Amino acid sequence: MVGSPVDGAPVGSVPLGAVAAEPARSQPIPAELVSARASIDNLDAALVHLLAERFKITRRVGRIKAAAGLPPADPGREAEQIARLRQLAQDSDLDPELAEKFLTFIVREVVRHHERLQADDHRADWLAG
Amino acid sequence: MVGSPVDGAPVGSVPLGAVAAEPARSQPIPAELVSARASIDNLDAALVHLLAERFKITRRVGRIKAAAGLPPADPGREAEQIARLRQLAQDSDLDPELAEKFLTFIVREVVRHHERLQADDHRADWLAG
Repeated sequence: MVGSPVDGAPVGSVPLGAVAAEPARSQPIPAELVSARASIDNLDAALVHLLAERFKITRRVGRIKAAAGLPPADPGREAEQIARLRQLAQDSDLDPELAEKFLTFIVREVVRHHERLQADDHRADWLAG
Repeated sequence: MVGSPVDGAPVGSVPLGAVAAEPARSQPIPAELVSARASIDNLDAALVHLLAERFKITRRVGRIKAAAGLPPADPGREAEQIARLRQLAQDSDLDPELAEKFLTFIVREVVRHHERLQADDHRADWLAG
């Protein structure tokens, strides 16, 4: 844990939504904003844990694809995921564009990881002769 | 719901992890991959719903900030969030870089939304004379 590069406040000891650690503000922070930020922090923790679980599974997918000789990217599958997430977003009052951008971001990171995995496999093959 | 632009399969009627709707594959999809994809689809639905809730709150934050004359972006707060999410990622075996990129993506979208909101407010002020 390092100090925040922006205001120098220690980060590791800051409780959710704390105001005390933000001394450099030029304006006081409304109580309503402090409360909203605490909720955002809770949701972000949940999002990170779901992302961790998702990437655990995509690591497995990467190994399955590499073993089966399947390409890392799969445009057909991605198009289906995008259409489905756009619909889910619309149903829950989230901008469908944002859901699509989010999935694109995730898929890009996953493909990058899969490609690294397959490159490692090829290197292992080469090293094995 | 529209057909997938990639393989022409209808998207709306595809159950989670279905193989039947992916006829254009050159190779069969391993059962293990179908199962992993169903889990990914479940997690993505949860992620989208959490994102919807998060953006509901940031819309509120946007209104609070606009009313208080606070700027849309808050580098000190963002540095704290990044440090915290990197730590949470590390604790749950997710690449901390990825958690940071994820938050950066979200914050960029939120700031874009807040700026639009404040621009709308200024236009409303101007229209009101």
